[in-house]
Amino acid sequence: MKINGSTPRRNKRERQVQLQQLISEDPFLTDEDLAIRFQVSIQTIRLDRLELGIPELRERMRHAASENYEKVRSMAGTEIVGELIDLKLGESGISILETNREMAFKKTSMVMGHHIYSQAESLAMAVIDANAALTGVSNIKYLQPVESGDKLVAKAEVVRVRGNKHFVHVLIQNRQVQVFRGKFILVTMDTIKEERV
Amino acid sequence: MKINGSTPRRNKRERQVQLQQLISEDPFLTDEDLAIRFQVSIQTIRLDRLELGIPELRERMRHAASENYEKVRSMAGTEIVGELIDLKLGESGISILETNREMAFKKTSMVMGHHIYSQAESLAMAVIDANAALTGVSNIKYLQPVESGDKLVAKAEVVRVRGNKHFVHVLIQNRQVQVFRGKFILVTMDTIKEERV
Repeated sequence: MKINGSTPRRNKRERQVQLQQLISEDPFLTDEDLAIRFQVSIQTIRLDRLELGIPELRERMRHAASENYEKVRSMAGTEIVGELIDLKLGESGISILETNREMAFKKTSMVMGHHIYSQAESLAMAVIDANAALTGVSNIKYLQPVESGDKLVAKAEVVRVRGNKHFVHVLIQNRQVQVFRGKFILVTMDTIKEERV
Repeated sequence: MKINGSTPRRNKRERQVQLQQLISEDPFLTDEDLAIRFQVSIQTIRLDRLELGIPELRERMRHAASENYEKVRSMAGTEIVGELIDLKLGESGISILETNREMAFKKTSMVMGHHIYSQAESLAMAVIDANAALTGVSNIKYLQPVESGDKLVAKAEVVRVRGNKHFVHVLIQNRQVQVFRGKFILVTMDTIKEERV
């Protein structure tokens, strides 16, 4: 199956670097996906993962999820829509959402916007380093339709914290194509209560 | 119980006009609420409703809901988050959402933003006079925290249709206080498919 069989060593090193990069960008990639991508056998990908110490997809997700949920401060981990696979509190986070028929319009099989929004907003909430918060403002763009069954990878980044306001940007990709971007301003709770009085 | 008992006829007419107005603005008002508002007995409110031909709260909602769901074109009625109690297709609509604990952060009992968003977005989708559509853009402001148990009344208005784009504004109130406003641009489906090609 190898295409450039003449220089296997160099290819292997390059492939492993790229493989690591790809998996960090899209944690949903299966060994099959990667084998097709690099035009090598699935067995080769498995050996690459072994050498690099990257566990298989399911294991990667299970492990990452349990570690990340513990870090969340602003909400209960189970309140996040999607699975939290990476979290640097106060900086960034990644979640994945496997869409299904129940999230889609029966008529068109397209996922309803508010399910995608929910993934984004709850990830934005999870990444901020605050005790409790509420969304104040959001600015949303749906860039491509998402079909029932698509797997969405959301990446959130805290871009600024000013007093009680946390500015968070969220991008969502579907097979490396951007389908959504959201800008959120989250407001920590103590201040909200004060403003209400 | 009547306060201005000296001019009951004039008061009654005024009260009935106001009562009709109030119920159209907030369909969640019970006879008890109205009795307190007008400082009359519940029995008086019931008689007013009888004379005006306004059914009681539960009946109002049941009747309105079944009629309105039939008018929706862009989606299945059951896909609307909340209960659709008024619909002028292509013009405006009203839905109500009874929030509960499952919609709220355990930590604070405050309703998560994305549930409020879902009510707004699905109502915006329901009111447009189109066969199928997706959300393109939304611009959201959460104005007041909403607590678990609060009843939200959402009003959507189609403000402009330009080609395949439907501009819809949604306001949500909680006990006559505005808690959310959203501006949506919905894009009809045929065009989305064309753009994708």
